[in-house]
Amino acid sequence: MSVPSTMYASVLTGPKRVELESRPVPSPGAGGVLIKVTAVGVCGSDTHFFESGAVGDIVVRDHVVLGHETAGEIVAVGAGVDASRVGTRVAVEPQTPCRACRFCKRGAYHLCPSIRFFGAWPVDGSFAEFVIVDADFAHEIPSAMTDEQGALAEPVSVAIHAARRAGVTAGARVLITGAGPIGVLTAQVAKAFGAVEVVISDPIAKRRDFARARGADEVIDSAGDGLARFDQYFDIYIDASGSAQAIRAALPTIVRGGIAVLVGMGGNQLDVPVAMLQHREITLTGTFRYVNTWPTEIDLISRGIVDTSGIVTGRYGLDGVEDALMKAKTDPEAIKTMIIPALTAA
Amino acid sequence: MSVPSTMYASVLTGPKRVELESRPVPSPGAGGVLIKVTAVGVCGSDTHFFESGAVGDIVVRDHVVLGHETAGEIVAVGAGVDASRVGTRVAVEPQTPCRACRFCKRGAYHLCPSIRFFGAWPVDGSFAEFVIVDADFAHEIPSAMTDEQGALAEPVSVAIHAARRAGVTAGARVLITGAGPIGVLTAQVAKAFGAVEVVISDPIAKRRDFARARGADEVIDSAGDGLARFDQYFDIYIDASGSAQAIRAALPTIVRGGIAVLVGMGGNQLDVPVAMLQHREITLTGTFRYVNTWPTEIDLISRGIVDTSGIVTGRYGLDGVEDALMKAKTDPEAIKTMIIPALTAA
Amino acid sequence: MSVPSTMYASVLTGPKRVELESRPVPSPGAGGVLIKVTAVGVCGSDTHFFESGAVGDIVVRDHVVLGHETAGEIVAVGAGVDASRVGTRVAVEPQTPCRACRFCKRGAYHLCPSIRFFGAWPVDGSFAEFVIVDADFAHEIPSAMTDEQGALAEPVSVAIHAARRAGVTAGARVLITGAGPIGVLTAQVAKAFGAVEVVISDPIAKRRDFARARGADEVIDSAGDGLARFDQYFDIYIDASGSAQAIRAALPTIVRGGIAVLVGMGGNQLDVPVAMLQHREITLTGTFRYVNTWPTEIDLISRGIVDTSGIVTGRYGLDGVEDALMKAKTDPEAIKTMIIPALTAA
Amino acid sequence: MSVPSTMYASVLTGPKRVELESRPVPSPGAGGVLIKVTAVGVCGSDTHFFESGAVGDIVVRDHVVLGHETAGEIVAVGAGVDASRVGTRVAVEPQTPCRACRFCKRGAYHLCPSIRFFGAWPVDGSFAEFVIVDADFAHEIPSAMTDEQGALAEPVSVAIHAARRAGVTAGARVLITGAGPIGVLTAQVAKAFGAVEVVISDPIAKRRDFARARGADEVIDSAGDGLARFDQYFDIYIDASGSAQAIRAALPTIVRGGIAVLVGMGGNQLDVPVAMLQHREITLTGTFRYVNTWPTEIDLISRGIVDTSGIVTGRYGLDGVEDALMKAKTDPEAIKTMIIPALTAA
Repeated sequence: MSVPSTMYASVLTGPKRVELESRPVPSPGAGGVLIKVTAVGVCGSDTHFFESGAVGDIVVRDHVVLGHETAGEIVAVGAGVDASRVGTRVAVEPQTPCRACRFCKRGAYHLCPSIRFFGAWPVDGSFAEFVIVDADFAHEIPSAMTDEQGALAEPVSVAIHAARRAGVTAGARVLITGAGPIGVLTAQVAKAFGAVEVVISDPIAKRRDFARARGADEVIDSAGDGLARFDQYFDIYIDASGSAQAIRAALPTIVRGGIAVLVGMGGNQLDVPVAMLQHREITLTGTFRYVNTWPTEIDLISRGIVDTSGIVTGRYGLDGVEDALMKAKTDPEAIKTMIIPALTAA
Repeated sequence: MSVPSTMYASVLTGPKRVELESRPVPSPGAGGVLIKVTAVGVCGSDTHFFESGAVGDIVVRDHVVLGHETAGEIVAVGAGVDASRVGTRVAVEPQTPCRACRFCKRGAYHLCPSIRFFGAWPVDGSFAEFVIVDADFAHEIPSAMTDEQGALAEPVSVAIHAARRAGVTAGARVLITGAGPIGVLTAQVAKAFGAVEVVISDPIAKRRDFARARGADEVIDSAGDGLARFDQYFDIYIDASGSAQAIRAALPTIVRGGIAVLVGMGGNQLDVPVAMLQHREITLTGTFRYVNTWPTEIDLISRGIVDTSGIVTGRYGLDGVEDALMKAKTDPEAIKTMIIPALTAA
Repeated sequence: MSVPSTMYASVLTGPKRVELESRPVPSPGAGGVLIKVTAVGVCGSDTHFFESGAVGDIVVRDHVVLGHETAGEIVAVGAGVDASRVGTRVAVEPQTPCRACRFCKRGAYHLCPSIRFFGAWPVDGSFAEFVIVDADFAHEIPSAMTDEQGALAEPVSVAIHAARRAGVTAGARVLITGAGPIGVLTAQVAKAFGAVEVVISDPIAKRRDFARARGADEVIDSAGDGLARFDQYFDIYIDASGSAQAIRAALPTIVRGGIAVLVGMGGNQLDVPVAMLQHREITLTGTFRYVNTWPTEIDLISRGIVDTSGIVTGRYGLDGVEDALMKAKTDPEAIKTMIIPALTAA
Repeated sequence: MSVPSTMYASVLTGPKRVELESRPVPSPGAGGVLIKVTAVGVCGSDTHFFESGAVGDIVVRDHVVLGHETAGEIVAVGAGVDASRVGTRVAVEPQTPCRACRFCKRGAYHLCPSIRFFGAWPVDGSFAEFVIVDADFAHEIPSAMTDEQGALAEPVSVAIHAARRAGVTAGARVLITGAGPIGVLTAQVAKAFGAVEVVISDPIAKRRDFARARGADEVIDSAGDGLARFDQYFDIYIDASGSAQAIRAALPTIVRGGIAVLVGMGGNQLDVPVAMLQHREITLTGTFRYVNTWPTEIDLISRGIVDTSGIVTGRYGLDGVEDALMKAKTDPEAIKTMIIPALTAA
């Protein structure tokens, strides 16, 4: 395709305010590729930035383009990149580490202090027609994957990183709190890692139904005391809710020597039953984004091992980003909303 | 030696009350050995039981003999034990796991729900002239080790288990909070595991001086803000204080991807900066006693890699256990008090 | 049931000679259980002992009962075992470690130098109506598992141990050489551990067909050069053939940093391309039986994650053990032969 | 300093032929630094290239500058590098990985298929007055380290990588075959990692004496059968000899579940006792250079934990490289020869 000189981008210009702007299409530098965006998922963190201007200590201080769950097609390459990659459909890993610090060189580039992450001010994201990323972070997807599945690779990535940190392996019994998109995908990913029993809790019936339909062995209403009978039962606990109450209810269900991995973002502080963690030698940790996950999720999604059907519950053009962010925030039945640039009204 | 039929034992008979009793010398069952006790250290948990009748959820409900840091000599063996072991000097690992549960079979016998531990009611400990233990938990010590060093193997064991769970390896930078016996021995053990820099904090100057003299690269007054300059510096943090304040001050000094291991027992609950732990992917865990450590500490102590000189600051007979427990509680200059049954007034 | 005083046992009495004998039913000692055998698989090692009187350095020096792939029902318990276990259907883990050596205490009881293993002279195995085993090595199976599946838990156990040592995890690409029962079950187990691509090679077409039908993504005739195109491709290679030729052809297909796990027993010596292993930092290791696998395979089989259908291709009574051993040796179409004591002609 | 436009380089121009050439001083590109070389060690691989034109499958096809054990001072920086680094004394990690392949991103950049390594044709090494390297591979050394120690960081790096792959930790018993510079430094590094007993074997008495003086607990003449009494004794075995005979004698001394790490380069093929490796579940692997080791060895050397005294046994200018290579080859008493560019005859 011939690349135009200008594009539309949906820009967060103030509190709860997104505006469609015309911007120059960026040029890929050495090692970079230009991607025509075909689908972008709306993440909870996009909603947080939209609502409150911050996620944890990452604060929006000026205009920024949100969006980081991205699929697209490579339309141009920078110096040093094989030109034959033009035309390739890709899932975008939305980060650019420095590649030279000790974290990068140890295989933990997600912890790179200099990392640039899509949609985290001042780095623009992909609620736009085109984005730039380093060539090796544009991961080719097979024809068996749709564009939306390419965008869903990002939340699956969150789940894979959690499963790896938790050490899910064949035979594991896993509890997940929170049946939003991350919770449900984590349940599927845990199964893909060999978990034999996955229990998921959530206060909303519709989400529990969806989790059960997508492979959870058992669902529990987190408003009740359904977890009480699982004393020291689960090898692994993964929180995808960010709820302190859910975490407090879940910790006693972890077996001696087990692990809790907190994926959901909640408050800054958490009161933990430290003597219990010590006596049972339970490990508590969290996840920050992901590292080296894309090849795995492309395998799992394209082979149907992770089932993404039914996850996407709404689609908007770039002119609908504000509506999409509102919807994601307010509609409890929405699971995952997609921005499809091609749907943008001309 | 000929084994007498009765022995003295120091029995905790009520709150802050220890009485010397005459008891029958126990007979070792199949697989067990009878040990004539030569030295027993007084542990912080002994003091806790003496003071308050409980450590965490382990509660003293009736008379019990405290004491679990034990050295001695095998004087009789039960059925199935090689009789040539009689006469062997040993350091006693003061626990008896079931050997059949999944924890035992996975090499985590310290997490065995049926484990019997010395001096934890209703299991009697070793403030007595003789004790029984399974043959393979009576670890032979070389002549290069004194009886008191044999007893000190137990706190060194706590340190080794912490170092293993923390993954201390060559090049590690380690922060330890608390310069009591466990903190100081953990500093030495961390060095033995290859740590290149060990910093230790404590509010008491005398303890800091001792820590420095025993190999800490730097000591910090935990009453001040000396840790502030170590932002995200340490690979590993080990708490040996049980102080929530010390832990709170220490967590920000851990590098991304680092680990905090809580050894000291403090309150039941701890308020942790969970968003920071998540963003930095810091792992928080604790230790419960130890597993498979005795051969290692015997190596480290007998070869002088761990230096135990100066640790023992007081010695009492079995008739002085109450005084020893009082002393350990009230004298800030006491580091480790030993009970030496041979010192008991006849 | 009332336990009779005598039973039939199939005894290896000489080279290629098995005789049915009447023997006293053994009594379970403390901690043991008596099991009425319902199904026993014939293993390649049984065939080896039958043929040559030895497997590696384990040599048959006198009469012995072979057989170690065992399912049954607990019919009596020894001292200290919960009597309510009588009547339980179990899969038998056919080994008795010492529980006290450093290997046992570290969770590697399969490496215990004093281990007693079923059917390895002088320890009798389970080609008999009744056998004794320690209570915790008689693993309860759910009603969803047949007796034959209970016996198949043993070869699945071999596969699980291999998958664990190989570190199979989600996304792995795995090559297996040898499509006998162990190879095919290893393919299924690798998938259960998250492998996304499993290729299996074998010289026999019928075995390849079976492997493909049981989930191998691709099968290769090991007589040809079908592996040549997989240069440095596989993360993990598992040999289930014992063939030096197969191993030599497979090693170059392992990716840098990958691992080869040799399960199949072949010659005592193997000529390896050591410079290649060094340059690519490939790890080479083997497996010896299994450790802590039964709970996992019971989960995987009973939930249908490992599909055992079609594995059993022949059934004999205790009076047919010699025929069964002959058949397993000589019939290339036989996959797994079962001994069903109830089929024994009265 | 002002950087001259030309420099001397010692160039391998043919079989066993090294010539001093005048060459232009290279300019550092973006991210690179120019280093004035102060000391370069002569490695066994340099000698191999000099002798035979090849090491394994790395073949010298044209003129090349050898040398990769390098210390120096940064004298100029390329674009994007902090200019304040000029004047810094550094130890050079002599490799440049691609930073984008899956090996690089997983923290295994030494396995990068596109890596460029000093002195491996067609990449020139550091037997020259100046060399270029990426800024993050020029590791600052403290004033407590001499230039020669900066160069010795490279062989220490080999030892650290081996110790890491072997999993040396506190309490380990380690056997090393080969008491050349790598063997002796590996012994010291193993101690730094916590090994409590290090035994080293070599056929040459002088080397054994040096090993003993540098911390080996015991030395063994590999010409005799001194290893025979260590049946299944060592947790870890590291070969630093490349001798098939030494490896064959050493493998039976490894404990069940232990590991053999082959560092020395010998023949392409090695006949291994595979049934023994399988029965004992011994792991066999090799090392290829190193990854992420420099910060650790700088810590270990500068703090005196690794003692490098006595290692350097000869020093030459750039005009003496041919002599140095000859000497390293032929003099059994030479341990490590250094090239000191400043000694070059004007």
